[in-house]
Amino acid sequence: MDQSVRRDFIETLARAGILIPGTVAGLYGRGALMERLAEFVSHWVREAGAGDGAEFLRFPPLMARGSFEDSGYFRNFPNLVGTVHCFCGDEEDHRVLMRTHDAGGDWTAQQRASDLVMVPAACYPVYPAVAARGAVAAAGRVFDVCSYCFRREPSEDPNRQQMFRQHERVYIGHAEGARAFRAAWVERARDLASLLGIPFDVVPANDPFFGRTGRILIRGQIEQTLKLELVTPSVAESGETACVSFNLHLDKMAQAFGLALDDQTQAHTACVGFGLERLALAVFWHHGVRARDWPTPLVDALVSHGGRLA
Amino acid sequence: MDQSVRRDFIETLARAGILIPGTVAGLYGRGALMERLAEFVSHWVREAGAGDGAEFLRFPPLMARGSFEDSGYFRNFPNLVGTVHCFCGDEEDHRVLMRTHDAGGDWTAQQRASDLVMVPAACYPVYPAVAARGAVAAAGRVFDVCSYCFRREPSEDPNRQQMFRQHERVYIGHAEGARAFRAAWVERARDLASLLGIPFDVVPANDPFFGRTGRILIRGQIEQTLKLELVTPSVAESGETACVSFNLHLDKMAQAFGLALDDQTQAHTACVGFGLERLALAVFWHHGVRARDWPTPLVDALVSHGGRLA
Repeated sequence: MDQSVRRDFIETLARAGILIPGTVAGLYGRGALMERLAEFVSHWVREAGAGDGAEFLRFPPLMARGSFEDSGYFRNFPNLVGTVHCFCGDEEDHRVLMRTHDAGGDWTAQQRASDLVMVPAACYPVYPAVAARGAVAAAGRVFDVCSYCFRREPSEDPNRQQMFRQHERVYIGHAEGARAFRAAWVERARDLASLLGIPFDVVPANDPFFGRTGRILIRGQIEQTLKLELVTPSVAESGETACVSFNLHLDKMAQAFGLALDDQTQAHTACVGFGLERLALAVFWHHGVRARDWPTPLVDALVSHGGRLA
Repeated sequence: MDQSVRRDFIETLARAGILIPGTVAGLYGRGALMERLAEFVSHWVREAGAGDGAEFLRFPPLMARGSFEDSGYFRNFPNLVGTVHCFCGDEEDHRVLMRTHDAGGDWTAQQRASDLVMVPAACYPVYPAVAARGAVAAAGRVFDVCSYCFRREPSEDPNRQQMFRQHERVYIGHAEGARAFRAAWVERARDLASLLGIPFDVVPANDPFFGRTGRILIRGQIEQTLKLELVTPSVAESGETACVSFNLHLDKMAQAFGLALDDQTQAHTACVGFGLERLALAVFWHHGVRARDWPTPLVDALVSHGGRLA
């Protein structure tokens, strides 16, 4: 997709008050219609999974550095990590900081790494929190989470934001349970994409593992079909964007966080993540920025969830 | 308030699945009942201000470092700031990072300050976004924002979280408009506290300005009654917690961000911030963790907003 098409799309969204671009690539404010769609998708996911007996959990967009290290994320995706740094100095250090800034220098040089890291995916805080409770029922448990996530990939593509929201469902239990969970959510996500009226396909995919070692991990992930994505045509350079991802972790997360099942068998985990901004942007891209031009079933569903559309 | 009372309160909240403590002080996950209250308060603020013609804006919990520097926050509250740092290295740097970690060292030493900073208050991203549009109508404009905010103050008091949510209304316009805006919201906040059934008082207050220079700023803030807070008895060490704050910035934010009015007079700003976690915690502290024990008007309002309480 051509860069000028991307810019036109962002300008259209900005003019309609849907997306508010700032001075940093990939960091946007959002207006009412964007939030209306994002909230609807989030609501839809909860309703679609209502029969799963999921536990509702919400975590802030920061997590403990210790848990983050346990996950191994910084080994596989170092380039996407955001760590939070703080000022630990006294008044004299503070004076140095201000003098440095006033002289055109970098005041952040005094910042020190804290015990907090940006959450890279909504499901990450779930594993340590559940592991801390003790063994999980072998029949399997489902968790409902929704959170801002951070990935350090400044981009001119509005689908690739540095701060974005994922609504996730997470499964912890047996290997077969994990596969069944994923299969069920692939079907549900197809239903959502149909309701939104966007063209889509569900395809095998891989995570952007870093470097040479990463290429081996990517091959393994594809060979074992561990990752599927629901993709839709978009203004991305590749011409399409993944809006939902369906992931089998095998026993990787369970091992990393010490998750155990109460029947002593090996715990497996799986997650399905709905990208709230990406799904909303897909609606704007395929149907335009005026709700009155959208497919009737979508408008009806939006009105039935949140009342009259402005 | 005694430390053991604080610990008991957190344990009660944790057992009820309302708050999920982790390994970092002041960073919590949250369960359904906590979110139900937080969402209700957020909804209440929007309804109470429905006649203000506020513009609905939502910003992520990170902002551009440039705008953050314009605000001067790092001069006044350096100890509360969180900056986001990233890895900018290549594969060889990545190998060093992993070797460092595996040898028990600090892998974050390679992280470099990015152009992103944690948002310290929900209103901060509003000013640069509005300034970028050009002059504001002198009659005044109101903005509705709600966001996670970060303050680096690890604490055993659940009212003092490092990541917390503020629902804010922000006024930009004339000095008299700013005072009228604040006065109206003090009355509305009293109504909310009455509905929640919590004892409260509205009192002059100050921000925790840093160091010796800070003490001068604090004196000025109190003398001019620039900050008011709605406080309620709590498990805080002082015995009370500010749940809502009402702030006159005079022309400080307008000058910092270059906000102009279309009649060429000096722009003033004001904001009122509702602490979603603090207001929810006040309900749990004063009425307990079971919704069936809460005041009838509160239960009725919750049910009318979000349906049956579990």
